[in-house]
Amino acid sequence: MIRMTDLIQKKRDGGKLDVSEIKEMIMLYTAGDIPDYQMSAMMMAIFYQGLDDEETLALTLAMRDSGDTLDLSAIKGIKADKHSTGGVGDKTSIALAPLVSSVGVKVAKMSGRGLGHTGGTIDKLESFPGFNISLSEEQFISQVNETGMAIMGQTKTLAPADKKLYALRDVTATVEQLSLIASSIMSKKLACGADAIVLDVKCGSGAFMKDIDSARALAIEMVKIGKGAGKNMRALITDMDEPLGFAVGNILEVKEAIDTLKGKGPEDFTELCLLLGSRMVLLSGLASDEKEAEDMLKASIADGRALDQLARFVKAQGGDDSYVYDPSKFENAAFTKVLTADKDGFVESIICDEAGLASMMLGGGREKKDDIIDLSVGIVFEKKKGDAVKKGDSIAVMHYNDETKIDAAFERLSNAVKIGEKDPGRKKILLDEI
Amino acid sequence: MIRMTDLIQKKRDGGKLDVSEIKEMIMLYTAGDIPDYQMSAMMMAIFYQGLDDEETLALTLAMRDSGDTLDLSAIKGIKADKHSTGGVGDKTSIALAPLVSSVGVKVAKMSGRGLGHTGGTIDKLESFPGFNISLSEEQFISQVNETGMAIMGQTKTLAPADKKLYALRDVTATVEQLSLIASSIMSKKLACGADAIVLDVKCGSGAFMKDIDSARALAIEMVKIGKGAGKNMRALITDMDEPLGFAVGNILEVKEAIDTLKGKGPEDFTELCLLLGSRMVLLSGLASDEKEAEDMLKASIADGRALDQLARFVKAQGGDDSYVYDPSKFENAAFTKVLTADKDGFVESIICDEAGLASMMLGGGREKKDDIIDLSVGIVFEKKKGDAVKKGDSIAVMHYNDETKIDAAFERLSNAVKIGEKDPGRKKILLDEI
Repeated sequence: MIRMTDLIQKKRDGGKLDVSEIKEMIMLYTAGDIPDYQMSAMMMAIFYQGLDDEETLALTLAMRDSGDTLDLSAIKGIKADKHSTGGVGDKTSIALAPLVSSVGVKVAKMSGRGLGHTGGTIDKLESFPGFNISLSEEQFISQVNETGMAIMGQTKTLAPADKKLYALRDVTATVEQLSLIASSIMSKKLACGADAIVLDVKCGSGAFMKDIDSARALAIEMVKIGKGAGKNMRALITDMDEPLGFAVGNILEVKEAIDTLKGKGPEDFTELCLLLGSRMVLLSGLASDEKEAEDMLKASIADGRALDQLARFVKAQGGDDSYVYDPSKFENAAFTKVLTADKDGFVESIICDEAGLASMMLGGGREKKDDIIDLSVGIVFEKKKGDAVKKGDSIAVMHYNDETKIDAAFERLSNAVKIGEKDPGRKKILLDEI
Repeated sequence: MIRMTDLIQKKRDGGKLDVSEIKEMIMLYTAGDIPDYQMSAMMMAIFYQGLDDEETLALTLAMRDSGDTLDLSAIKGIKADKHSTGGVGDKTSIALAPLVSSVGVKVAKMSGRGLGHTGGTIDKLESFPGFNISLSEEQFISQVNETGMAIMGQTKTLAPADKKLYALRDVTATVEQLSLIASSIMSKKLACGADAIVLDVKCGSGAFMKDIDSARALAIEMVKIGKGAGKNMRALITDMDEPLGFAVGNILEVKEAIDTLKGKGPEDFTELCLLLGSRMVLLSGLASDEKEAEDMLKASIADGRALDQLARFVKAQGGDDSYVYDPSKFENAAFTKVLTADKDGFVESIICDEAGLASMMLGGGREKKDDIIDLSVGIVFEKKKGDAVKKGDSIAVMHYNDETKIDAAFERLSNAVKIGEKDPGRKKILLDEI
């Protein structure tokens, strides 16, 4: 059996942990046989000394194997998954999964609720009345075989070692270490069993990674882990310096995803879906290059197959698919308040996480795990970076229910939007590809 | 109130902790309001980033103040104390305290039991039948005022923060950090309330500090802390590459201390007592230079005052002082076994900690806190480094009671003694002075 004190000392002094040592350490920690105080010292030693590729892969696989893993082998064909590091207005899965599965990609996806400016994919899908996120593994697999896609909630037993370790890192100042961040994300992703994984690493004021260098480093690290685990991998580094699309807020985002599947979505969000989608098609072996893959997706949007696939998926999981074809049926917030330009000029920037917080203050996101989300509230932008505005023009509409919350949220949003004299130009959505 | 996660991050990134932050952190940790897993991450961050002089002093004083501190102000004159970092055959306090108090130095000393090759000073003193180590603070102070010295056991409430923190560091690979080592020692020493402190930093194979550079660094660090706390400080770095004196083992060492107070002790041990003692006399303002102080001590040995002072001290604490004048009354171990030279030559080295372990294997020391010590067992060397030997000459005598333990212990001792062809010369006891 390993002696944890010796292992900490080895890493502390710059040594390399053996694969078997990492495996046993994570197994014992998950079982409660290694105390938190030793693990936090180890995490701090890793913070300074790092982990090499072999150690990082071993840690990821050990965390993956600490709980249940999905066996998708009963699904015919290549199963593709997508993971985003998260941002403001990120409704990507809701449009992307039906889009790619409409051209033949098999999507068997687990999603979380999580904390943040809005709910997770799972919360957003629950905007469809009747939608069921709790599937058995058998239901999940047979639905993918029958309809091409399924999205279910994460089980509690998915990578429990990661859950325990992340909670510890969060209170011991050991979060910001590349190998630890990458292994945390990838352990959960790998436990979900897909063959091909496209990563969307967000970069900018609304993302965990604020600059392109650190986003690129994380993308490279995750791709390395995925390839080490035998997966087809691709990573895109995409802009999150302003909110994605126009809508921030659960139902508002679902509506925007529906618009996008009809070919009427925001330019940046549509581009992102095509970028990520074409890579998923490519990694699944259904096209020979990005151009061909993208054309397949555009055709599916144009002839309505993508939208129909969303309806089929919602219906398969017990949801009311009539909402897909008539989004006016979704519940609206009781009130709206419009943010207008206080001078002529150009939208210079929208501070992304501040805009997200404004939406969260309306009740659209969770601060604590047991907070209840108000699905109908949020923000719809009418202008984005680089748009010309005249004094009095509407910049954004806030949708809210609770009149006691609007003033503080409105002020926060006002401060997040900067209007300048010069045209700053638009940001490109794709910053790099790994 | 401090947020521990922020404090860890600050130190992790090379920042400096405020005095007030350190104070509150130690207070909360002692009270159980900061969990071990945060403190161990902090210790690991300190391992890499270090503490500057101000932080180290603040940590020491916070740990000192985490429990009871002795107020010695009711004792007339300057109170001097000595601390040794520990080694094999270190019976120094038992000879040194009576020696210096016989010339007027006030010694109010707390000593521990501790783990190691032999018991602590307190265990050794209990070789005198009836000796009482549990004094109230009033008894302790009045005994020093009446007889010039007292030695009592450490109370449980002495620097409890250090006790808790050391136990944590021990299992998280965060022991070997200079500021942490120095503050741990000094917090307890400062809690004992002396005005002048002479440190004996051991260096060599039998010491915690194996080389002169690290011993010197620790000595400098501790002297800085002591001066920062307003104490008169001196540190000697002394050799611990072979056992100190001839005797290793509790009663055997007490007998050797008695011999030394009679002027018949081993050369190296006598020299050490005179070196440390003269510094205590000097820091107490009772002599104007080392030479004068040493002459005072030599005179006290020569005319029997030093030995009488030991007897007075033993009697004051309820012990049978007749043993001081007739050490043959002490219990002897049942058996002896002699290690002889297997060839002609010179004693090249005695591996110090191996010799200590051999004695411990006979039952003379504690491995765990509740082990019971056999006071009569141990080793008496008859030859030391640099002595010429002929094949068959006696090198050391092992004293033992348990016949099942002797063979392994004897083998260990045999392997610890190296005989070579050339005279290696003797080691000097004083290596440096701070």
